[in-house]
Amino acid sequence: MSIAIQGERGSFSHEVAEKLFGKSVPIVACESFPELFAVTLGPRARAEAAVVPIENALYGSIHQNFDLLLRYKATIFAEAYHRIELCLIGAAPSRVARGARVLVHPVAAGQCARFVKKHRLTISLAADTAGAVRELMQARPADTYAIASAHAAKLYGASVLARGIEDDAKNFTRFLAIGQGAKKLERTKAAHKTSLAFVLPNTPGSLFRALGAFTLRDVDLAKLESRPMRGRPFEYLFYLDAVGSLAEARVQKAVAHLEELAEKLWVLGSYPTAVDRRS
Amino acid sequence: MSIAIQGERGSFSHEVAEKLFGKSVPIVACESFPELFAVTLGPRARAEAAVVPIENALYGSIHQNFDLLLRYKATIFAEAYHRIELCLIGAAPSRVARGARVLVHPVAAGQCARFVKKHRLTISLAADTAGAVRELMQARPADTYAIASAHAAKLYGASVLARGIEDDAKNFTRFLAIGQGAKKLERTKAAHKTSLAFVLPNTPGSLFRALGAFTLRDVDLAKLESRPMRGRPFEYLFYLDAVGSLAEARVQKAVAHLEELAEKLWVLGSYPTAVDRRS
Repeated sequence: MSIAIQGERGSFSHEVAEKLFGKSVPIVACESFPELFAVTLGPRARAEAAVVPIENALYGSIHQNFDLLLRYKATIFAEAYHRIELCLIGAAPSRVARGARVLVHPVAAGQCARFVKKHRLTISLAADTAGAVRELMQARPADTYAIASAHAAKLYGASVLARGIEDDAKNFTRFLAIGQGAKKLERTKAAHKTSLAFVLPNTPGSLFRALGAFTLRDVDLAKLESRPMRGRPFEYLFYLDAVGSLAEARVQKAVAHLEELAEKLWVLGSYPTAVDRRS
Repeated sequence: MSIAIQGERGSFSHEVAEKLFGKSVPIVACESFPELFAVTLGPRARAEAAVVPIENALYGSIHQNFDLLLRYKATIFAEAYHRIELCLIGAAPSRVARGARVLVHPVAAGQCARFVKKHRLTISLAADTAGAVRELMQARPADTYAIASAHAAKLYGASVLARGIEDDAKNFTRFLAIGQGAKKLERTKAAHKTSLAFVLPNTPGSLFRALGAFTLRDVDLAKLESRPMRGRPFEYLFYLDAVGSLAEARVQKAVAHLEELAEKLWVLGSYPTAVDRRS
């Protein structure tokens, strides 16, 4: 079984893939999220599953990946909350030089704004965090660092110069393990969350009634988000996570009831949570 | 009346400030969002109002600014949906040189990823889009461009080399005009949206009952988003936009009913929408 990730070996997605599938899991590294979905769920798929970030504690939902989940009819079969700890990484141990250049992913750059400003680092954007470390170790340019995980530093034989350099220490990202439809949809009692997406008719009270399908069956909600649909003003796509497994009758019935009310409904999966022991 | 914005003159926030307050409105340029809130709502405020981005069609809610809205007890008195059109800008007219350097805000860099890749541009991060153009025109470094609005190019006497270079043309951002409490809270019939934030008790069905306060009074919702509260697992902060003005009795009563049900409630404002005529 090989697992697709966005970015290279040593990325945060790779860390999560190892947490969910074991240390020696074969990785298919993808440049972009559209490539990752195609590689896993397209007509010529060559990965059995993928690990994809979906929500960040600081920045909210990654709508692009929700869009791709729906477009490819992906099934979620696990989730993991993963702590994103960023490090300043050098080719060799040294003190942090003021005004040095740093290779960094744009989102990571935003998360380390204070550190970058304090040390007056000049930023060169990289497509992913681990790729920045690989590039650093290959070319070994003078006065240049990378920002990535300690895992990436270790993988490429680089040195961690400063650890935990992000502005906000509560920097968690929620990742999903996804794969093809029914094959991966394990309707076991072990699943503790069921994810849905739906479109409601644009009539007053439609959301209230939709939530009634859950509340009237004592099914709790873990997430509810409305998102305007592009090019369709006043129409919303909803993401909803219900607490419970599709193996439970009350969850099944709530979903069937929602299907009656919704114009469109996607059952994205029913799955367990992998807990991050370091958190 | 002076208006605080994050970024410099010529930024998208500046465009929105001109749309809402007129072409000659005095601007207080702030480096960061925390500075913007302090300048407008802190003990030594020197701006009467501020314009702040709150939600992007592609990237979702900007949670940092929701946090600041609550912390400073800001009042929203208008909103505007603004089209973000990015341009490649040079010091003088020329063809786009492959491999040139480009000064760009990290979010704008993410939005123009395809164009940057196609032209193999090297990225240097800038704190804001308009500032990148100003820097370009001051230092006039060789083979260097900026990415910003056409407005910024005009303001600093620079040349637009390519227009609409963002990956997704449906790149809208929702901006809010905010100010101090009651002073700015105009409870007029002209307001068409009322924004609330609240925390519910962690009991089954609490969200269903909260929505009932609106649905049972025929008050429609324009936005509903749940967001996990940091450091408080299983507790959620909700953002809700109701369609209607606080000048209407049914909206007032729905808010009073929600106050009975919520552990905490913030009334963020009741305000009209400024429509972008170019969209």
